Amino acid sequence: MSRTLLAQGRHLRFVAEDGWEYVERNAVSGIAVIVAVTDEGRLLLVEQYRPPVRQRVIELPAGLAGDEAGREGEELVAAARRELLEETGYEADTVSALASGPPSVGVSSEVVTFFRAEGLRRVGPGGGEGSESIVLHEVELGRVDAFLAEKAAEGLLVDPKVYAGLYLLHKS
Amino acid sequence: MSRTLLAQGRHLRFVAEDGWEYVERNAVSGIAVIVAVTDEGRLLLVEQYRPPVRQRVIELPAGLAGDEAGREGEELVAAARRELLEETGYEADTVSALASGPPSVGVSSEVVTFFRAEGLRRVGPGGGEGSESIVLHEVELGRVDAFLAEKAAEGLLVDPKVYAGLYLLHKS
Repeated sequence: MSRTLLAQGRHLRFVAEDGWEYVERNAVSGIAVIVAVTDEGRLLLVEQYRPPVRQRVIELPAGLAGDEAGREGEELVAAARRELLEETGYEADTVSALASGPPSVGVSSEVVTFFRAEGLRRVGPGGGEGSESIVLHEVELGRVDAFLAEKAAEGLLVDPKVYAGLYLLHKS
Repeated sequence: MSRTLLAQGRHLRFVAEDGWEYVERNAVSGIAVIVAVTDEGRLLLVEQYRPPVRQRVIELPAGLAGDEAGREGEELVAAARRELLEETGYEADTVSALASGPPSVGVSSEVVTFFRAEGLRRVGPGGGEGSESIVLHEVELGRVDAFLAEKAAEGLLVDPKVYAGLYLLHKS
């Protein structure tokens, strides 16, 4: 097996291996994606501009574990709670894993873990940290498909992990 | 907006832009992901070894449009039919788009389009082309969750696009 480091970035390594090319994240222990439903039956979705696609994207709240100094040993479930709070302003009574897997295994070694968050209480403003500018949407579960269709009609993109999270929520 | 090419690979470009890093595919016009259900109600899933995660992964049949010489103008729906045939040996009467979106927008500009394939006829061996070694699974829809749990228990990974495809199938 031949593995070549093609480039070392600040956040990612670009690697070639046996004819494949892909990126790996530096110093990240996991990625948490949160399916959070309020007691009123509203799904929490976030909207932000994403430079790789030059468009605003509708996503589930999500973030990296262990990516900052002092957080190296952060548990994935702790990262899920922290990202939910930073992006949406909500704390959860219970956070439990639903499933894990690689969303783009042709170009990245990333593996994400979906968590279900329940018993939500709004305790902060949300919106992300630092330079992040995140808009929170609280959407009744029965209206999610219509909401996503409206956003797509406006030209926004929808991360397929939203559909995956909804599937995992409905079967859990 | 400052954009820097960090490395040019054979398949991917590694780019930095406004503090973000991500990869772009060279010369690809789209990515098709196929939700194919046989007349007997069986979902077609593929299993293959994926170097980025060093593991076998369960996925929906999928592939790139316009990625090879002579295919530059290939329509995405034609790529969906071609990849379905190459990977599974099935042809479809109808192939229709369900939804599009970026599955890993933090690290890649990729946008995938989910297609539903119906009226399936097995006409070839499948298994992929060239060096690909793809195992086909035909799984009754009512048994998909159990099948995925069995594979996960064996240590295989499941691409979350499988869950996304099932959600889009059930709501379509």
